[in-house]
Amino acid sequence: MSDKSLLNDLVVALKCLPSVGSRTAQRMAFNLLEHNRDAGLKLADTMKQAIENIGHCSRCRTLTEHDMCRICSNNGRNPEILCVVENPSDVMALEQATAYKGFYFVLMGKLSPLDGIGPEDLGLDLLEIRLTEGEIHELILATNPTVEGEVTAHYISELAAKHNVKTTRIAHGVPVGGELDYVDSGTLSHAFDGRRNY
Amino acid sequence: MSDKSLLNDLVVALKCLPSVGSRTAQRMAFNLLEHNRDAGLKLADTMKQAIENIGHCSRCRTLTEHDMCRICSNNGRNPEILCVVENPSDVMALEQATAYKGFYFVLMGKLSPLDGIGPEDLGLDLLEIRLTEGEIHELILATNPTVEGEVTAHYISELAAKHNVKTTRIAHGVPVGGELDYVDSGTLSHAFDGRRNY
Repeated sequence: MSDKSLLNDLVVALKCLPSVGSRTAQRMAFNLLEHNRDAGLKLADTMKQAIENIGHCSRCRTLTEHDMCRICSNNGRNPEILCVVENPSDVMALEQATAYKGFYFVLMGKLSPLDGIGPEDLGLDLLEIRLTEGEIHELILATNPTVEGEVTAHYISELAAKHNVKTTRIAHGVPVGGELDYVDSGTLSHAFDGRRNY
Repeated sequence: MSDKSLLNDLVVALKCLPSVGSRTAQRMAFNLLEHNRDAGLKLADTMKQAIENIGHCSRCRTLTEHDMCRICSNNGRNPEILCVVENPSDVMALEQATAYKGFYFVLMGKLSPLDGIGPEDLGLDLLEIRLTEGEIHELILATNPTVEGEVTAHYISELAAKHNVKTTRIAHGVPVGGELDYVDSGTLSHAFDGRRNY
């Protein structure tokens, strides 16, 4: 039972999913085979199709099965604002939470010299071309407030300065609904420095 | 971004896996598409093959892609002992932990009238045929020590008594390495009643 079998192959293959270890993979395999065969077949088919067809948007680099993503090909949006984010999931989060109607640019990562990720890996040449086009008036930096995210934001802000485009950074501070004494000191100091007229 | 797209289809399809909700499914989808395309294609393929080819062993009902599973088709094992378990994963666990060399019978569930699961759903007719064959001298009941598991064990023990086959139940007690005052009272009382000569 512990050697070569299709069941074992399935358990091993399932471990490619993030945060799925041996036990979870085994549970998933049994669940699929015992109660969920139809859904499993559909999942296998969708996964194959998605992996074979989904590529990057030629304009903003997000994941899409078309040449240009739904947002980039929407003429109703404001072409003067461009929001730079790290991942496609950030686009989803912003679309759901805000009324933002500009376009996005998805880095698909962040500057990280230790991992060998430089400007060319983030498509910053593509971003620079868009900045030279002169249509963009405001570049919103919405990278994550981590060390790498800040470095990336700083790098891009210098790029934008070179092309005389105004850059803004999303606000960092105390999360709405949070309590002051539970917030870490870095965030609190950010929130204090970034205070606004009331 | 929130409407119909292959990416969304993939996220929805991934939610068929046990304990995978919207957030986890999204994370899995992005991870597959950004870093794991090869492994993802392999997973999709293995999943399809497994679902299409894996059925039940004609003798012990466990999951296998063959007519008879690896254990049932092994002539070197002892045909006089049969161990009844609820799930294929129990077989794996016992094989890894014990030196048991008899055969197994996998119920693929447990008696649960509330869920409409009766004796016929557990293949007990198949088990009865094996009991009538007269080859089995000991039937080990290794169903889980839950209410349904105990009921199932009791039902099967009566079946075995009808055919004059001796039944044994795996021991329940304090887990090895456990501490008495952390063990629940049901287990402790079981352990006390089941004490053995030292």
